[in-house]
Amino acid sequence: MAPPPPQAPTSAGSPPLLDLTIDNITPNTVRINSQSGNPRLTYLMGRLVTHLHDFARETRLSNDEWMAAISFLIGCGQISNDEFILLSDVLGLSLLVDSINHPKPPGSTEGSVLGPFHTHDAPLLPNGASMTSDPAGEPMLAVCTVRDTRGRPVAGVAVDIWETDSSGHYDVQHAGRGAPSERCVMRSDERGRFWFRGLRPVSYPIPHDGPVGKLLLLLGRHCWRPAHVHFMFAKDGWDRLITALYLRGDPYETSDAVFGVKKSLVIDLDKVDRETAREYGVEEGIWLLRYDFVLTTQDEAERLKDQLATEALEKLGLRMKLVDHLPVPDLD
Amino acid sequence: MAPPPPQAPTSAGSPPLLDLTIDNITPNTVRINSQSGNPRLTYLMGRLVTHLHDFARETRLSNDEWMAAISFLIGCGQISNDEFILLSDVLGLSLLVDSINHPKPPGSTEGSVLGPFHTHDAPLLPNGASMTSDPAGEPMLAVCTVRDTRGRPVAGVAVDIWETDSSGHYDVQHAGRGAPSERCVMRSDERGRFWFRGLRPVSYPIPHDGPVGKLLLLLGRHCWRPAHVHFMFAKDGWDRLITALYLRGDPYETSDAVFGVKKSLVIDLDKVDRETAREYGVEEGIWLLRYDFVLTTQDEAERLKDQLATEALEKLGLRMKLVDHLPVPDLD
Repeated sequence: MAPPPPQAPTSAGSPPLLDLTIDNITPNTVRINSQSGNPRLTYLMGRLVTHLHDFARETRLSNDEWMAAISFLIGCGQISNDEFILLSDVLGLSLLVDSINHPKPPGSTEGSVLGPFHTHDAPLLPNGASMTSDPAGEPMLAVCTVRDTRGRPVAGVAVDIWETDSSGHYDVQHAGRGAPSERCVMRSDERGRFWFRGLRPVSYPIPHDGPVGKLLLLLGRHCWRPAHVHFMFAKDGWDRLITALYLRGDPYETSDAVFGVKKSLVIDLDKVDRETAREYGVEEGIWLLRYDFVLTTQDEAERLKDQLATEALEKLGLRMKLVDHLPVPDLD
Repeated sequence: MAPPPPQAPTSAGSPPLLDLTIDNITPNTVRINSQSGNPRLTYLMGRLVTHLHDFARETRLSNDEWMAAISFLIGCGQISNDEFILLSDVLGLSLLVDSINHPKPPGSTEGSVLGPFHTHDAPLLPNGASMTSDPAGEPMLAVCTVRDTRGRPVAGVAVDIWETDSSGHYDVQHAGRGAPSERCVMRSDERGRFWFRGLRPVSYPIPHDGPVGKLLLLLGRHCWRPAHVHFMFAKDGWDRLITALYLRGDPYETSDAVFGVKKSLVIDLDKVDRETAREYGVEEGIWLLRYDFVLTTQDEAERLKDQLATEALEKLGLRMKLVDHLPVPDLD
């Protein structure tokens, strides 16, 4: 690719980018990054560069440490497209970003981490269907409802559900994956119900053969997630809910490698009794998961998000305004 | 690869990692990252996570922006191993880290950015040799000395020198690169001198076909570096000097895309006169670069680095001690 023709350098009115030092490089870098005319981009880049430089100044980051960080990023890029999501997960950033963007009013179901294993090819299954093809797992019937914060059923919600097989691997982690397995999409019925057959979930290690696994080892952290089933709820007019249900008593219940567990999402499994077995057409005695999910309307969630953002920014002493629900500096 | 056997979760004494929110996730993530027994690693991870989370909280980072950042990192990993160095360069981090680690006492030559194009296979050439095989460039004789801060010659310094060819590309940027070209290593002689034939340097765009180039475009920044020749000086007992000399009057002299230019490193080229031509065995009238580099001893540089680190950390109100010249919290 031929280089583009020389472009005009920084406009003549700008102070020159020359003789930059430990002390003046940050305002100069922020300034040169502020020419896009997009106030949100300017704000994001300004905060990013300031934090990055402050980190280097506060730690007196060594050349070797800088090179180790560069090599770490290169290694993440080489092993898999999921490694940067895993990195965000184990650093607590994923949970934080989801918490900022999808605040939950009291009484609604709390969120949890998405993780890298959701796919867009899960089959749409009718109520009562099985989403697993793994004969080795312990069968589980899940019977759930979707309601609003006033207890009214929400019909027609697309519910993405995914979990690992009995070996603790998602289908996409198996070489030569065929049809999707241990995942499906369902729609809540007129009474807000959906039910399906899956597996009693098992705890599993997040992928740890790459740089993120090495980092956890270096930090003396384990790489395990407690047993859980993922759920994602989507319907126009409702705030998207990404969450998961966790099994009480799992050895990793209070030390999830990616910080996803909330007390309100920890559940006890039951066993299917004779009446339930007959009602749902399953074997008596298999595991039974029951949960009532509560969604928030998009309006409700956005109002709460704006309110929390405004309060947080005021507390930080930042003079900001919200544009499309995202803060930019208020320069008026 | 089989998953490792389950490891012991967080030690029983730790508070559980549960119900993490926008407000409490940072101290909890810092705590779980503090178990390595390596105080430097603990400090680095603590500052990294705090800055990362503060960035998300101050910007109320949206899910889409988070995903854009993840995609950006994936794109960097896919295009080339140099892209993360380029990213560090255009964000001013590379210059900052080098400035922190190699402070220059008054009277010594200032540093500049290394960039991604230094290699370890440059041939060792004798004084007077040519390091270019490009017939299209404008020939230049460089006559330099290496001295200490008291003006005494430093002999036996390994001097790495590299520049682009006349098209503005380093040899490694050409497909099917053969022998190294426009790069060499020389040794300063007993009088601290080294001299070689190269090319009058040209301005050139940094690689811009990847995510970093797209970012610069989005920010309204150009991707050009002013014409320069890279130099790196190494000798036991002396602080490694990475620097470059820049041509005065270059259109990008005051807007270098990677912030490398210092006034003290901007030079005027001369023309070789009859006497110099005879002395160095070159044609009269070709370009002439003269420069006297001044090195700092390792002791001098380390003392200055420690002093600047101590002052900076005191100014930040951080109670730290230096271990191997790197700060860790002082908990005594």
